[in-house]
Amino acid sequence: MFGEIKGLNEECGVFAIWGHKDASQVTYYGLHSLQHRGQEGAGIVVSDGDKLSTHKGLGLVTKAFKEGELEKLQGHAAIGHVRYATSGGGGLLNVQPLLFQSQTSGLALAHNGNIVNANGVKSDLEREGSIFQSTSDTEVIAHLIKRSPHPTLEEQFKDALSTIKGAYALAVLTEDKLMVAMDPNGLRPLSIGRMGDAYVVASETCAFDAVGAVHEREVQPGEIVIIDNDGMRSQLFSKPADRQICSMEYVYFARPDSDVDQINVHTARKSLGKQMAKETPVEADVVTGVPDSSISAAIGFAEQSGIPYELGLIKNRYVGRTFIQPTQELREQGVKMKLSPVRGVVAGKRVVMVDDSIVRGTTSRRIVQLLKDAGALEVHVRITSPPITHPCFYGIDTSTKAELIASTHTTEEMREKMGADSLAFISIDGMLEGIGRSSQDKNCGQCLACFTGNYPTEIYEDTVHPHDKVMNS
Amino acid sequence: MFGEIKGLNEECGVFAIWGHKDASQVTYYGLHSLQHRGQEGAGIVVSDGDKLSTHKGLGLVTKAFKEGELEKLQGHAAIGHVRYATSGGGGLLNVQPLLFQSQTSGLALAHNGNIVNANGVKSDLEREGSIFQSTSDTEVIAHLIKRSPHPTLEEQFKDALSTIKGAYALAVLTEDKLMVAMDPNGLRPLSIGRMGDAYVVASETCAFDAVGAVHEREVQPGEIVIIDNDGMRSQLFSKPADRQICSMEYVYFARPDSDVDQINVHTARKSLGKQMAKETPVEADVVTGVPDSSISAAIGFAEQSGIPYELGLIKNRYVGRTFIQPTQELREQGVKMKLSPVRGVVAGKRVVMVDDSIVRGTTSRRIVQLLKDAGALEVHVRITSPPITHPCFYGIDTSTKAELIASTHTTEEMREKMGADSLAFISIDGMLEGIGRSSQDKNCGQCLACFTGNYPTEIYEDTVHPHDKVMNS
Amino acid sequence: MFGEIKGLNEECGVFAIWGHKDASQVTYYGLHSLQHRGQEGAGIVVSDGDKLSTHKGLGLVTKAFKEGELEKLQGHAAIGHVRYATSGGGGLLNVQPLLFQSQTSGLALAHNGNIVNANGVKSDLEREGSIFQSTSDTEVIAHLIKRSPHPTLEEQFKDALSTIKGAYALAVLTEDKLMVAMDPNGLRPLSIGRMGDAYVVASETCAFDAVGAVHEREVQPGEIVIIDNDGMRSQLFSKPADRQICSMEYVYFARPDSDVDQINVHTARKSLGKQMAKETPVEADVVTGVPDSSISAAIGFAEQSGIPYELGLIKNRYVGRTFIQPTQELREQGVKMKLSPVRGVVAGKRVVMVDDSIVRGTTSRRIVQLLKDAGALEVHVRITSPPITHPCFYGIDTSTKAELIASTHTTEEMREKMGADSLAFISIDGMLEGIGRSSQDKNCGQCLACFTGNYPTEIYEDTVHPHDKVMNS
Amino acid sequence: MFGEIKGLNEECGVFAIWGHKDASQVTYYGLHSLQHRGQEGAGIVVSDGDKLSTHKGLGLVTKAFKEGELEKLQGHAAIGHVRYATSGGGGLLNVQPLLFQSQTSGLALAHNGNIVNANGVKSDLEREGSIFQSTSDTEVIAHLIKRSPHPTLEEQFKDALSTIKGAYALAVLTEDKLMVAMDPNGLRPLSIGRMGDAYVVASETCAFDAVGAVHEREVQPGEIVIIDNDGMRSQLFSKPADRQICSMEYVYFARPDSDVDQINVHTARKSLGKQMAKETPVEADVVTGVPDSSISAAIGFAEQSGIPYELGLIKNRYVGRTFIQPTQELREQGVKMKLSPVRGVVAGKRVVMVDDSIVRGTTSRRIVQLLKDAGALEVHVRITSPPITHPCFYGIDTSTKAELIASTHTTEEMREKMGADSLAFISIDGMLEGIGRSSQDKNCGQCLACFTGNYPTEIYEDTVHPHDKVMNS
Repeated sequence: MFGEIKGLNEECGVFAIWGHKDASQVTYYGLHSLQHRGQEGAGIVVSDGDKLSTHKGLGLVTKAFKEGELEKLQGHAAIGHVRYATSGGGGLLNVQPLLFQSQTSGLALAHNGNIVNANGVKSDLEREGSIFQSTSDTEVIAHLIKRSPHPTLEEQFKDALSTIKGAYALAVLTEDKLMVAMDPNGLRPLSIGRMGDAYVVASETCAFDAVGAVHEREVQPGEIVIIDNDGMRSQLFSKPADRQICSMEYVYFARPDSDVDQINVHTARKSLGKQMAKETPVEADVVTGVPDSSISAAIGFAEQSGIPYELGLIKNRYVGRTFIQPTQELREQGVKMKLSPVRGVVAGKRVVMVDDSIVRGTTSRRIVQLLKDAGALEVHVRITSPPITHPCFYGIDTSTKAELIASTHTTEEMREKMGADSLAFISIDGMLEGIGRSSQDKNCGQCLACFTGNYPTEIYEDTVHPHDKVMNS
Repeated sequence: MFGEIKGLNEECGVFAIWGHKDASQVTYYGLHSLQHRGQEGAGIVVSDGDKLSTHKGLGLVTKAFKEGELEKLQGHAAIGHVRYATSGGGGLLNVQPLLFQSQTSGLALAHNGNIVNANGVKSDLEREGSIFQSTSDTEVIAHLIKRSPHPTLEEQFKDALSTIKGAYALAVLTEDKLMVAMDPNGLRPLSIGRMGDAYVVASETCAFDAVGAVHEREVQPGEIVIIDNDGMRSQLFSKPADRQICSMEYVYFARPDSDVDQINVHTARKSLGKQMAKETPVEADVVTGVPDSSISAAIGFAEQSGIPYELGLIKNRYVGRTFIQPTQELREQGVKMKLSPVRGVVAGKRVVMVDDSIVRGTTSRRIVQLLKDAGALEVHVRITSPPITHPCFYGIDTSTKAELIASTHTTEEMREKMGADSLAFISIDGMLEGIGRSSQDKNCGQCLACFTGNYPTEIYEDTVHPHDKVMNS
Repeated sequence: MFGEIKGLNEECGVFAIWGHKDASQVTYYGLHSLQHRGQEGAGIVVSDGDKLSTHKGLGLVTKAFKEGELEKLQGHAAIGHVRYATSGGGGLLNVQPLLFQSQTSGLALAHNGNIVNANGVKSDLEREGSIFQSTSDTEVIAHLIKRSPHPTLEEQFKDALSTIKGAYALAVLTEDKLMVAMDPNGLRPLSIGRMGDAYVVASETCAFDAVGAVHEREVQPGEIVIIDNDGMRSQLFSKPADRQICSMEYVYFARPDSDVDQINVHTARKSLGKQMAKETPVEADVVTGVPDSSISAAIGFAEQSGIPYELGLIKNRYVGRTFIQPTQELREQGVKMKLSPVRGVVAGKRVVMVDDSIVRGTTSRRIVQLLKDAGALEVHVRITSPPITHPCFYGIDTSTKAELIASTHTTEEMREKMGADSLAFISIDGMLEGIGRSSQDKNCGQCLACFTGNYPTEIYEDTVHPHDKVMNS
Repeated sequence: MFGEIKGLNEECGVFAIWGHKDASQVTYYGLHSLQHRGQEGAGIVVSDGDKLSTHKGLGLVTKAFKEGELEKLQGHAAIGHVRYATSGGGGLLNVQPLLFQSQTSGLALAHNGNIVNANGVKSDLEREGSIFQSTSDTEVIAHLIKRSPHPTLEEQFKDALSTIKGAYALAVLTEDKLMVAMDPNGLRPLSIGRMGDAYVVASETCAFDAVGAVHEREVQPGEIVIIDNDGMRSQLFSKPADRQICSMEYVYFARPDSDVDQINVHTARKSLGKQMAKETPVEADVVTGVPDSSISAAIGFAEQSGIPYELGLIKNRYVGRTFIQPTQELREQGVKMKLSPVRGVVAGKRVVMVDDSIVRGTTSRRIVQLLKDAGALEVHVRITSPPITHPCFYGIDTSTKAELIASTHTTEEMREKMGADSLAFISIDGMLEGIGRSSQDKNCGQCLACFTGNYPTEIYEDTVHPHDKVMNS
């Protein structure tokens, strides 16, 4: 659930609200509940009808916003954003929402996703004299809006969206209008809810629960939703397509209490675990999950197999963003920071270890080793996603293809490398079944690109992988 | 497990090591694994044989120690300490270990527990001209050692221990000696392990796993263990008594992967859950535990009852020490920071909510409300400790008696107040059974004072409750 | 000299270097010597031939750059900037140099001065789709460069300069070129020096002394100087005009050890003091200057008049940017933070108090009061600039006209208000004489706009006073 | 005046007040005016009659105390302290006032000076069981007070003072009493003033001017002054001796606007300069002083000699406590941080450079070099103190004897080393004359130990030089 241990990183969470007198405060709590989607920085832009105001900060929402700073952000509408932790780059400049002030009006954007033709569009814009302060996709969108010859902001926004390709869940705020949009394939999640009379929009529905709002519906692929003093209205800026939402949202990213495209994440994960137990059963004494994202699946595996579920691995809750790394020497002596095996649970036992995915394979190897060191007789690894063999260009930092162990190793080779007694991945059909989609249906509703290489959009020659950008969004 | 949601707070964790060239680094990782026992501050004192050096800081271990600071703490022996988060008081002065430098030698102390006759002893010492820089019990012990007329440090230490009453797991470091001691009733946990040739001592065995050490044995009630260049030796400074270890270590404080007095905490908690299912069964659709400390018990309850275990409550992992509190108005609209119900799991269901204890009752009431708001048809609360009716004087901050709801309300009154459909506490015998103690045995091995008011030590008129001190230890 | 006590604030200092392997380090020390020109923030952009890198920070140079940060700025060419302290606005976004990265190249700008037609130009640019991230004039220049249809950077730069009106000493850095430019009236100072083989450029020559460079010449009005691997070359982008450099640089802003347009500042100030003693002599016992900017003039006044020069006022060196202001009540009891009279020097004496300028008049009144409270029998105020009656639009924050006491009061009214026994301002001719210019010459070489209202450039209707901008440069 | 450039460091400033409703605020401003006596840390202890409260911080007063912290320090009496900047050691623990809380009352101490028999006394105390948390002399005094068998605090204080030897200007605060004391030789300054009905005490009288108080008298050698609700009274705890106040207070440490032992410091310094001009006249074109401490003397030298006084050296006002040091290579290229020559003033001139003292000689050499590099034809160094040949044990950090260049070199050798054209020190008689003391009088009123080696107190074998202590006071 939280990317700290993984080689897989979600990129950002978006929250927006219209029509609430404490818009910035509500956004703060909404962003806090989306914190698992990004920990590098957080920002809020608020409108009071006359002007936009903003505050941004590095680190967690609770660090970026200190007492008193919310009070300065007065207004009835706001958009907010949490950014995921890139290794080095970034800094405050890259924290969203981006706010562009002209002499007459302001424009703020918050974006989750990745624009695959950003480089080409940017080159065109630069040739015409545009200046960029960042390498962010989001800034490209702002320029496209401002350069559009259309007379109204809504038209300009649609014009801009017709130029960009890729994945986006976008929120745009001006002094008198909130607009949100979803890419034509619906690759990233974005939901609409109501909080009393106010409208709220969020990357995940857990944010609605956090602020006491009620979930109403999903933003649809290719849809723009406009909210202003006349209420909410909707348009399609692109011909309707079948949704292909990112499968890893169910498997790994989203919070268990969120409903993604109307499917509860905990329930989906539990089904994935059950499905695995059916596909690749194993004789064992205990089932354990790698915290936090695989707990639900482990419970499902246990329920289906009849093998008791136990806390076999404990995650240290206090691992923050900065700590002193153990030296190689101490690591070899067994010093560890994040994950501990529960000796009393696994010693002398045959353990089923349920995990959600394998990226580079190093984490899995380390966990298998932990369990064996703690006395596990056998470790059977069950992965609730199919092998990841292709990079993602839609907003997930999965490293390059060469780094994806499943693209260069067979399952048996991986098993051997990680020292497991058995290793199995869920099948693609099994995963779809677990999530609740019909694999029979040509349009299964899910993006499977990282498992199959069939990307739902064109991929340009100079498509930039998020990993290679100074600033992702 | 982590005191953030509770009205119940553990007080401190101790780690010590002798005979390792990277003593301060190992202590850092050891303390990190004991972080759940205290988050206010952390400190390390290290000896290189000639002198003692120290660094302390406020906040989590990873905040208190920044890159480079460990390198300055060179030596082969170290003691470290994590302090629990008091609301206001404290500051850097109160972070342990306390280090006292005389012109010829140094003396460092790290303490978990509470001295019940501290005030009286202190008055005596002040009358003789002693100056105290804090209100800490630990400083009292240092003065007693220094004032002892005995010729050797070991004798002085025993002399000091013979004066103090209460609960203590103590580690003392000088340039050439590490000494640890346990109070005669063995109220707090303290274990000894080996890490290669080095000796390690820790409040919980999870610290041994974190540093790759092997658990060897418990420090015994009334025992002093001395470790120096001649190896390890032991003495009893008090006549042997039966151990009466704090029951709440099993129920709430310790990490599930620790063995406390040779009993694994996760396993004990699971048994408590099973025991509850036997004692007070209920018809329901799902079992859920309040994270993190009640997860194990909920799994046990589910296993025993056959009702499926689910993640019905999600804890926000990013709640730090400081954040902006929602206004009353927003709270009433449903804004929450810490705990979210999983609507998809509990809506339309009869829910068994397993929790570990009730102190003031406010948290339980809030959680029941959360579940009902998320659509739970019924909420059946099962508490895996007996009603807490008496304050603790041995190092746990349980508030005063008047604030303990169970000391003034019947179970039915409490149930009504919290809006639950049923409420049950485990019986004392059931708890002992769950932990694995025989209740038949007069000396059950557990301190039950907070349930019974039978305190294992004398309680003095001016015994200070930890809650009322500027500085606890 | 240092704007802390004054209502008069210089706006920024610029430093640049080409051809030194430690370009960023040298810039750091150069900026440090220009610190009196701006204390809000500091930044450096460095080129290694391939790319531009930057670091910026708030506060003094020594705060903005911490150990290790300079090492990351590797390259042989750099530009740097210090910003003056606005009351509230600004923040890191506004710290210069501004750096604009396109996909193919970077462009960095550091600017001292003020563009008087910035608003109009900006409106034009926004209508064409330009997006601004700040309200800075400097960003306008960057857009003009990028939008210029000319094929080379030098042509584009000249094109941009032909559009803007006002005062500017500009430094522009790309990967392979350093360009500096001076406005056609030469309103602000900018000098060129050599440091071994390297070229250095600075707002004041004191920066050359600070880094061991040798002063060579001034950048001329309307001149662009280009420095790259082919050496240094120069062009005029505007028809030659007579220089009209800001008079207040001599009177108040520049450091005494700087030569401004080839005239040493200390020497000029001393002459101003002598001139005053000739114009408005007075019978007195001691001469004292308001530290630090009026010390030189006071020495001159003493030398000319034969009245001994004394330290009659002491400035507290430790007044930083933030401190707790005394309450009104304490202020009335005599509590003061910045300036103390030397009782032993002024008590029972007739004091000549030399100061450089009067803006709102409040500071002068306070100082006269201080001296009287310390026992001065008489206080004769001598001001080494003529009355300031008009606002400055060229980069100095002199408040609005209404706030300029000399625009609404006679000298006698001002004397009375400040409680002085006599008050005299230097005459315009006397000031020119003191600085060493001939007042006979129609083109005296100095801008006198703030004394006469004769502005050397057009002033647009919407010319923004620096005081009213979020971000000055 | 400010120790930043010197190898000579004053140790601490003391401020106290009784009977003012804003006691802590007034102390803040008083300490701010004493900032030149210590920049490492600052602290205040306040009494409201019932209890003592404190706040301390590292760095300048304005950094140590942030908005709001003074408001928490409510009370009518306070003592405060500023500490001088030791190279490494210290930290918050060492910032004074030290506050000792017993169960019944508090005791706070602030100390300027050095106890020469501290080590011996401390050993005795430790043998009796005293525990020290620092190596501070001040803590020794607290222990002596607490251990004294006398019945009243005043008696206990006198008892403690009778044991210690050395230099001290001390302020002690309890809930209901303020006591100040001066060592029997009166080595350090301490003055008493009135601020309305309130009593104020300060190391220098400039603090009285800063808070609007009136200077009344000096604390006398061997005197204790007690101030409480019954008013002020005084006792001698030691037989009256002639005062021997530190000569360097006049020459270097004190602020020019202070009166030390009733002599104005600026006036004394000016006389020292005149005296030098008489003793060792020289043909030259300009006189300049090393800022800030030698400005007054340079003015005197100029006045006496008829050679014009000029600003030949400019000190960068923005050199803070931390900055990035130039590399050796850059230093050789002429990069400098602190002091700049005014080329226009010294080039082609014969310069008299007046400085106050020579400790290790390195600073003087560097300044002579600066002036020559800027074109000075000749540099004649005039030092307004006699050669410092012996270390100080009374609170000044003059390095050890071996480091004092005058103890191992003749004047001619020193001249040669520093590259000056002439070098002269003031004579001891000349210095006394300049300060206004009669050298005829056996008891000249001044401590001359650092020039003569005649220490006014016993010096013990284990007397600790301030330089060698972790914590000075």
